[in-house]
Amino acid sequence: MPKAVVVLSGGLDSSVAAYKTRYKFPKHELYAISFNYGQKHAKELKCATKIANSLNMSHSVVDLKAVGELLSVGNSSLISDAEVPDGHYAEETMKSTVVPNRNMIMASIAAGYVTAIGANLLVFGVHGGDHFVYPDCRPEFFTHLVHTILYANEGFIEPSFNIYTPYMNKSKNDIALDAFRLRVPIQQTWSCYKGGILHCGSCGTCVERQEAIHSTGMEDPTVYENPNYWRSVIPIKVEEEV
Amino acid sequence: MPKAVVVLSGGLDSSVAAYKTRYKFPKHELYAISFNYGQKHAKELKCATKIANSLNMSHSVVDLKAVGELLSVGNSSLISDAEVPDGHYAEETMKSTVVPNRNMIMASIAAGYVTAIGANLLVFGVHGGDHFVYPDCRPEFFTHLVHTILYANEGFIEPSFNIYTPYMNKSKNDIALDAFRLRVPIQQTWSCYKGGILHCGSCGTCVERQEAIHSTGMEDPTVYENPNYWRSVIPIKVEEEV
Repeated sequence: MPKAVVVLSGGLDSSVAAYKTRYKFPKHELYAISFNYGQKHAKELKCATKIANSLNMSHSVVDLKAVGELLSVGNSSLISDAEVPDGHYAEETMKSTVVPNRNMIMASIAAGYVTAIGANLLVFGVHGGDHFVYPDCRPEFFTHLVHTILYANEGFIEPSFNIYTPYMNKSKNDIALDAFRLRVPIQQTWSCYKGGILHCGSCGTCVERQEAIHSTGMEDPTVYENPNYWRSVIPIKVEEEV
Repeated sequence: MPKAVVVLSGGLDSSVAAYKTRYKFPKHELYAISFNYGQKHAKELKCATKIANSLNMSHSVVDLKAVGELLSVGNSSLISDAEVPDGHYAEETMKSTVVPNRNMIMASIAAGYVTAIGANLLVFGVHGGDHFVYPDCRPEFFTHLVHTILYANEGFIEPSFNIYTPYMNKSKNDIALDAFRLRVPIQQTWSCYKGGILHCGSCGTCVERQEAIHSTGMEDPTVYENPNYWRSVIPIKVEEEV
């Protein structure tokens, strides 16, 4: 049975990507992998477990707290004392939410796992809207990443190995639409970077989540501390490709 | 002051690469980074500290034991119950010493650190003889790696970023020669994969270490449990390029 490893944060994007993978690759056995890098919103990991369980996936949570500590010298607001900014992702302040090389670090470990268990697919839930802020969510990065992984593990990794990023050229709205189409338990996912008791409603990822779910015309099952803030920030349009 | 990050295992190769970097980049401030991935020879990390101290480098040891545990399902003999094989690196059995995607994982974390501290150089002590066994020591891998790191961190990493692999097209013998030329405290480095009290003298890396130091005509200051085994295994010649 072919195997796929899904990098699952417990947020909306990777959760929908997991469900999409289940739908598109029904013959693959799915393995979820999550990372605790000391993020303020580490409670997302509990959501990752719920999503993994809902799909009957094996789930590994890898302790990378030492890595988060190492990288905190760069003052990323997700792993240091710096405050998580409110507002829209398109704003300059959102750069503080970048964790240096995060996706490459997670992809490298996941690729090691792919190689160790003989999987041939690695899944990331990145989307077009991420490209504004996160250089490691862009297609250029992933194209190079695949080759680097193949060279790094030649002779050990399945030669058919590839990375599946179903939303790379789609928008967050498309993800929200698929969340309803694929019956993803949205209320079991966690997006908020602040990691409080409720979703704050005002950080970049909360704003984006609300915009996207609202765009589907469906009801947002998430409870936000500040449920109307998102309407006050400037929305951005992501160019969509098919 | 420009900064360089040296991936330092505490073995001969990376230790000599650190000294070479000090020599070739006298204006760079040097940072050493080491990884504890649950390797049987974790005692190499103490040697890494000694080498880092001898060069007055700041030294970070990153706890990746959870990653080692995750990857141990692949039965690498360095991180699982499988036995570390005796013999020459060129032998088929040495494949068991491959840890899936190890160099890419270490490079990714080190590149995050490079980005966080504003360094522009990442140093690896890989050499031509590694290519037999380790796909993630080959030039093809490192060429792709540089591009992937640059794309992953565009806008955050120094645009002049590069990877320095002084021995990529050299042999272990060249490293041993440089060890003497650059006055590396060889007795403070640790190569043996078995991680016992003394270097075993018979695992792939011990055999290679003895061959290389012997080739210089200088005395090997290392004490081996089995100091003559290496003479009984078939030596291999690595093609050298300038």
